[in-house]
Amino acid sequence: MAKQSVSKKKLNIAMIGSGFMGKVHSNAFRQVGHFYDVDYDLQLRVVCGRDRVKLEAAAAQWGWEETETDWRKLIDRKDVEVIDIAVPNALHAPIAIAAAEAGKIVLCEKPLATSLEEARRMAKALRPVPHLVWFNYRRLPAIAYAKQLIEEGRTGQPYHYRALYLNQSGNDPSKASGWRYQRSASGTGAAGDLLSHVIDTALYLNGPISELTAVLHVFAAGRDVDDAAMAMVRFSNGSIGTIEATRYGVGNPNLNSFELNGSKGMLQFSLDDMNRLNFYDATERANFRARRNILVTGPDHPYWKTFWKPGHTIGYEHPFIATLGDFLQSMSSGEKFHVNADDAVEVERVLDALARSAASGQWVKLTTDAKA
Amino acid sequence: MAKQSVSKKKLNIAMIGSGFMGKVHSNAFRQVGHFYDVDYDLQLRVVCGRDRVKLEAAAAQWGWEETETDWRKLIDRKDVEVIDIAVPNALHAPIAIAAAEAGKIVLCEKPLATSLEEARRMAKALRPVPHLVWFNYRRLPAIAYAKQLIEEGRTGQPYHYRALYLNQSGNDPSKASGWRYQRSASGTGAAGDLLSHVIDTALYLNGPISELTAVLHVFAAGRDVDDAAMAMVRFSNGSIGTIEATRYGVGNPNLNSFELNGSKGMLQFSLDDMNRLNFYDATERANFRARRNILVTGPDHPYWKTFWKPGHTIGYEHPFIATLGDFLQSMSSGEKFHVNADDAVEVERVLDALARSAASGQWVKLTTDAKA
Amino acid sequence: MAKQSVSKKKLNIAMIGSGFMGKVHSNAFRQVGHFYDVDYDLQLRVVCGRDRVKLEAAAAQWGWEETETDWRKLIDRKDVEVIDIAVPNALHAPIAIAAAEAGKIVLCEKPLATSLEEARRMAKALRPVPHLVWFNYRRLPAIAYAKQLIEEGRTGQPYHYRALYLNQSGNDPSKASGWRYQRSASGTGAAGDLLSHVIDTALYLNGPISELTAVLHVFAAGRDVDDAAMAMVRFSNGSIGTIEATRYGVGNPNLNSFELNGSKGMLQFSLDDMNRLNFYDATERANFRARRNILVTGPDHPYWKTFWKPGHTIGYEHPFIATLGDFLQSMSSGEKFHVNADDAVEVERVLDALARSAASGQWVKLTTDAKA
Amino acid sequence: MAKQSVSKKKLNIAMIGSGFMGKVHSNAFRQVGHFYDVDYDLQLRVVCGRDRVKLEAAAAQWGWEETETDWRKLIDRKDVEVIDIAVPNALHAPIAIAAAEAGKIVLCEKPLATSLEEARRMAKALRPVPHLVWFNYRRLPAIAYAKQLIEEGRTGQPYHYRALYLNQSGNDPSKASGWRYQRSASGTGAAGDLLSHVIDTALYLNGPISELTAVLHVFAAGRDVDDAAMAMVRFSNGSIGTIEATRYGVGNPNLNSFELNGSKGMLQFSLDDMNRLNFYDATERANFRARRNILVTGPDHPYWKTFWKPGHTIGYEHPFIATLGDFLQSMSSGEKFHVNADDAVEVERVLDALARSAASGQWVKLTTDAKA
Repeated sequence: MAKQSVSKKKLNIAMIGSGFMGKVHSNAFRQVGHFYDVDYDLQLRVVCGRDRVKLEAAAAQWGWEETETDWRKLIDRKDVEVIDIAVPNALHAPIAIAAAEAGKIVLCEKPLATSLEEARRMAKALRPVPHLVWFNYRRLPAIAYAKQLIEEGRTGQPYHYRALYLNQSGNDPSKASGWRYQRSASGTGAAGDLLSHVIDTALYLNGPISELTAVLHVFAAGRDVDDAAMAMVRFSNGSIGTIEATRYGVGNPNLNSFELNGSKGMLQFSLDDMNRLNFYDATERANFRARRNILVTGPDHPYWKTFWKPGHTIGYEHPFIATLGDFLQSMSSGEKFHVNADDAVEVERVLDALARSAASGQWVKLTTDAKA
Repeated sequence: MAKQSVSKKKLNIAMIGSGFMGKVHSNAFRQVGHFYDVDYDLQLRVVCGRDRVKLEAAAAQWGWEETETDWRKLIDRKDVEVIDIAVPNALHAPIAIAAAEAGKIVLCEKPLATSLEEARRMAKALRPVPHLVWFNYRRLPAIAYAKQLIEEGRTGQPYHYRALYLNQSGNDPSKASGWRYQRSASGTGAAGDLLSHVIDTALYLNGPISELTAVLHVFAAGRDVDDAAMAMVRFSNGSIGTIEATRYGVGNPNLNSFELNGSKGMLQFSLDDMNRLNFYDATERANFRARRNILVTGPDHPYWKTFWKPGHTIGYEHPFIATLGDFLQSMSSGEKFHVNADDAVEVERVLDALARSAASGQWVKLTTDAKA
Repeated sequence: MAKQSVSKKKLNIAMIGSGFMGKVHSNAFRQVGHFYDVDYDLQLRVVCGRDRVKLEAAAAQWGWEETETDWRKLIDRKDVEVIDIAVPNALHAPIAIAAAEAGKIVLCEKPLATSLEEARRMAKALRPVPHLVWFNYRRLPAIAYAKQLIEEGRTGQPYHYRALYLNQSGNDPSKASGWRYQRSASGTGAAGDLLSHVIDTALYLNGPISELTAVLHVFAAGRDVDDAAMAMVRFSNGSIGTIEATRYGVGNPNLNSFELNGSKGMLQFSLDDMNRLNFYDATERANFRARRNILVTGPDHPYWKTFWKPGHTIGYEHPFIATLGDFLQSMSSGEKFHVNADDAVEVERVLDALARSAASGQWVKLTTDAKA
Repeated sequence: MAKQSVSKKKLNIAMIGSGFMGKVHSNAFRQVGHFYDVDYDLQLRVVCGRDRVKLEAAAAQWGWEETETDWRKLIDRKDVEVIDIAVPNALHAPIAIAAAEAGKIVLCEKPLATSLEEARRMAKALRPVPHLVWFNYRRLPAIAYAKQLIEEGRTGQPYHYRALYLNQSGNDPSKASGWRYQRSASGTGAAGDLLSHVIDTALYLNGPISELTAVLHVFAAGRDVDDAAMAMVRFSNGSIGTIEATRYGVGNPNLNSFELNGSKGMLQFSLDDMNRLNFYDATERANFRARRNILVTGPDHPYWKTFWKPGHTIGYEHPFIATLGDFLQSMSSGEKFHVNADDAVEVERVLDALARSAASGQWVKLTTDAKA
């Protein structure tokens, strides 16, 4: 190791979960120091899961020093400082709360919880410790740049916000199994899995939702979680919109899109073209007005000093690296990190209202928690 | 004139309205015989409007033989066989009913009426005479081809139908005036003007809507018609969806789009790329599956023997020509023409439910009229 | 007819040729008065062709008053003031020269001639009479707007100009027949038919070509005209580029595209998206730089007062109407019209150099004609 | 480390060069074991460069154990088994030859050499040792998939191959410095830097070039390397094409594109949409023919078991990881690896012909080396 890293503080990580998200997190742990100047030297100490064969394979692939099959044992270990949670949603709360109570740094996959009440309990437990919730899309350069343009006033008074998360997993019988399709493990279906991303981005870019009316729909007979979720929403800023997620969005392998129409401009993003942002500046002279298809890889764009160089695109995993990098820097600087558990509670609040509205067929107003 | 037209029957037209739609209709009257083999020789007999200067200009530009300022006088004229209605919505009913009762052929702009009840009365009056409602988009080659693919079973069981009509006229103070922004003349705002198109296309492609919950929204203080309309809908075929129209869709000069996700495939269309249809065939082997961006100008596509030749695109006006051409051919063949007044009643039925739902905040079930 | 047209001067047209281009011209004759305020009332007097059945059909469809099978008879007719030439290229010269010498107004399809020498003779004959060459694409709003942006200096010093015309007719055995594939009738193949468009647009937008090296290629055994033509060129303004046309551009029904890279900006156009122009402004601040995909239908764009209204697109035929409209207005105003025969000679000059270079394998410098 | 890696053979790497490509290579060294099952455990032993400050920073960032400023010292070190060359082109030959002669495994950046003669000498030296040339783009999933479709016969007889590499570095005074703009360090300009990529991909997908005529152009006064290079080429398979690269392609941050038109289909790729491939199947029934915009992330696509999961895109760096992974696997399997030095000689052969043609203005035939 080069000298510089000698002075870094070692942080021992235990990751619980060795599926696809475990792979994505492992990559972030391995890569963050290559792209971020952080004060911590991450140690991939132990990976925990139930399937020993898969566990050994994951450990070998990513260089986890040890494997473990009982997450509870990790909580008490002195040589573990960070607990990373990449398991089915129903396990988030017990693990996160135990870890936080043991004073661990906690990284938790989204959605935070399986209910609003659970999310609140988790937030209460997590507030005292450094923690993050892996809502990764806020750190896509295109979405971070959208946020910047909105804050600069370039979209003006917001009128409409329309967002979708469409995949086609439900229509593929080979995929429509596993814990994501069982209420006991996941809490919800497309709502928690996909729409939670849409909601977090919406709250980030367009602010709180004040009321909504919603549909939760099951296409597959006998399934106990929603295959599709959609809602019409009113935002506190006066704009209106629709949000939707489905596993039956045939034709869309993994589409996560939004469009914001405001008095001064429009922003449009789609995950299947994730390095770009469409911006329409309605204040320009008429014959110049057009969608600018901005390749968000320029020297003045968010996160582009971080990765490659202008014109060179990034892939799916980079926002995870950026999330982790920003988090580690916030640990040094003391700045509040987002998305934290309180932010994630806001997502759960919308999911909760959505479920109640879907059940009642009524509009539901969102209320705010009493101050924590 | 070449001999062939000697044997054609002359049809004398009176067009009421000399604004933008009057221009579009005049063009269709002038052009239909150039692209369609029809049994009728259309005579642009008289154009009627209130502003004499504009009227004379329109007459000169398009070769209308006479001008008139009182539409009632046209109803009694023996030398007028066709009444074409291109005036504010509130005038559709009195003119159409009077014309039908006088035995005229009636062509009426959309939306047919300002209320469901009015639409029903109009349909009753119009049924005995040849008539059309100018829902032009069904005859866009791309939309006609979408219909064909659906009927061939290429999209399978429908899951989702999502459609938008966005323009930005409301955000432009210079445009936000005129009869379209006054309830007395238009009946509704974006709902009747824009969403009616979305609804007609939805009913055409995806069948009846069984229930919906809706929002009508006014952005501009003091305006008495909706600037934006949106709804979540359940279709009788089991699919669910959203429909939306707005005059505040900044960034979209004139977007009219839909996406249909079915078990076997996806269709996607947008009016800002009107000569193309995206089709995703989910039954192909995995590594070939993709959006095909079909330029609907091929020799086997709908309407392409009608206009230019493969690879040569059409513009905004051509679906109007095709609507008129198909109508004139249906007059010869005796086949039932669509969109007729009964079809348009179905659009009004959705608009009516939408307004009731928007007022009550409740889901509204759509009922069927007793058989006519 | 409304009174206004009483004062218009009648212009009797004889159109020679009743194929696809005859249809397009007939449409322009019928439509020009609907979109342009012109001093002339066009009379579709006589259509001339060899196939009497097709001729009668064309006459019936478009309302030509008479048919004729011998073009020479038209030249002497006093009641014919305009000769429109839409026949195979080899007939352009005899007809155009005879018509011009008889004092007719001459409209001639492109390419003007089958050789540079022939083009020069035609230009000499045509100069004294009002005339046009049907290079229609200059009057696509997007290309006219590109010209305007270039003249405003928005692209700066030009570096590269790259242009293509690709169709796939040669790869389709059912299409690869007819006069376009025979040297005796067409003079050249893809070069004259397709590349001539590319060259005219290039000269219009980027100025004279000073030298080139070229390839003419035949894919189909035994064919005596080129299936593909390509050249590397140096422009007088210091930029370099490639131009190419082919009938074997499989995958492209009718692509006609260019890209201009200059020190201050980039312009990009493609006929398969003909209502749009991509513009990249390299002088903007870095994080705003992007391709603007401009829908060239705005109130300040070229030709948009002419046709529909903002956001409403046009089709293949409209540039022909605009060509004719501008020509008729130039006849009234006395302004020089482009594309005239001298402009078309410049296209032939490039085609001539291209053929010589293809034969020799050498770079060929283009020389200028001694002043006419 | 998990046990599995205990049995892996350690490979000590010395990387020469610590600029942008050094960063990209370091990443590949760090990541390859995470995505590939390889028999080697890469050790980042020493990084070598001239600027000690940058060197220490690079070492710290990527965990290189040592730094060195004299590359010659690395050649003799027993503890270095791999020499990776990421320095200006003029240094490739001396380093690679010395390393190969010392029996090292050699990884060399592209272009391999500064002349054909030098490339031949390098190939002779490198043949006995495992080695690769970093032409990374062959391992973009989209390009690998294009190769597969061509080999399956899906494009048929090739007619045209058109390829571009456009960036705008030359137009940006802040970028137009450094070794890439000096002949002594780089050998050539845009030709070796950018066009070499185009050529390698062309040879890979469309086979050998038999002759060409070319232009090398300098836009910036006083510069001694080409800013732009373009050629018309004839391929041995009978197709014709154009290739072009420029640093003055304003509007294109980093475009690397090709289009292949064949009798049965078309393929089209662009690096600015690097996870997609357009495929047009000309053998389908007419009304289905269209560009399929294939997201090359499906389970049956090349390299997608390697990285994330279907629908999840990759970024700029992944083809480098794939290049290294395939190389390490070829070392185990004994299969011949491509791109090797002999492959890279073929690229140099085209660059050499291009320079001779640009100098003479003549077509140049490419000859084959006598068998090695």
